[in-house]
Amino acid sequence: MVAKCSVFIATSLDGFIARSDGSIAWLNEANKSITPGEDCGYSKFMADVDALVMGRNTFEQVLTFDSWPYGSTPVAVVSQRGVSLPSNLPPSVSVSNETPSALVARLTEHGAKKIYVDGGLTIQSFLAAGLIDDITITVIPVLLGSGRPLFGPLLADVRLTHESTTAFDFGFVQNRYRIIRDAYPRGEFNVATSTFL
Amino acid sequence: MVAKCSVFIATSLDGFIARSDGSIAWLNEANKSITPGEDCGYSKFMADVDALVMGRNTFEQVLTFDSWPYGSTPVAVVSQRGVSLPSNLPPSVSVSNETPSALVARLTEHGAKKIYVDGGLTIQSFLAAGLIDDITITVIPVLLGSGRPLFGPLLADVRLTHESTTAFDFGFVQNRYRIIRDAYPRGEFNVATSTFL
Repeated sequence: MVAKCSVFIATSLDGFIARSDGSIAWLNEANKSITPGEDCGYSKFMADVDALVMGRNTFEQVLTFDSWPYGSTPVAVVSQRGVSLPSNLPPSVSVSNETPSALVARLTEHGAKKIYVDGGLTIQSFLAAGLIDDITITVIPVLLGSGRPLFGPLLADVRLTHESTTAFDFGFVQNRYRIIRDAYPRGEFNVATSTFL
Repeated sequence: MVAKCSVFIATSLDGFIARSDGSIAWLNEANKSITPGEDCGYSKFMADVDALVMGRNTFEQVLTFDSWPYGSTPVAVVSQRGVSLPSNLPPSVSVSNETPSALVARLTEHGAKKIYVDGGLTIQSFLAAGLIDDITITVIPVLLGSGRPLFGPLLADVRLTHESTTAFDFGFVQNRYRIIRDAYPRGEFNVATSTFL
């Protein structure tokens, strides 16, 4: 049984996860409007995550946090070019240049049942490979006009089943979808060149 | 009092209103899943629309319908290049090469209180000009991967107030937002060249 791959991410109403330079200051600003104590389901989502997969951009964003947020949960940083890991990171962090399917197979072998896939290009490559099971998108009420999009090119339409929607008092709208798998051709997506292999 | 400009539109989860060639067959297909009798608020939205503004692409889409759907409500087809109107259309249909603000001013003078702005580039130009009051987006549970996006470049962030969300049993999620106006620099957006003037 291959591990389930889940996405949990915030976007602007026009679908961006970061500005073109990678900045998420707009998101941090929006997060100030969140009701104290509300985490929009994040801790519940994280509770049964066995492993994380993220791209280099997301990893570098995480490195700017005050402390490493993922404890000893295995984190695979996906990069074709290689990433140098700061020495103060726990040994649970590794770099991978595997294809999405090879990486998921290996994490599954090591016991992972639920993998949190994070970062725009990484999510896109896993989607294109037919590996994503469910997506939770929290839409922030702002239009950025440009930036790094959550979604990218696909070999074919991906149909989804809507599972739930939560509209928060502070204007965020969270939608959860399940991917209808085996309904579209899969391809390995080369993150480095943004082309299908 | 300038007429209120409203958007009422459907997009894929990745933010496209049509495929790259303008086709909305994917949307027509999705619409087959709608509960009989449900119109997702369209007739209620249309009830107090005094005038419509749409781009040439949307207009040509409307021309493929079995009959002209807007009765005698004034419809301005925005085009810099000009559009030839079929002779069987009612006299309420006209072509405009005015700027968004000039067009809204003229329609307001003629008594319009609520203008329905439709079509991707037209909506983008009105947004960039600071003329949109509210947006109702119905999100269809499909990823297209590419196509004509609802949103485009902006001179600055546009913040919105979330007003309501309706999740339909058949998987569509409809969100209504009000634009926080006067919160960003306005510019006239040239639809023909996709650049700010």
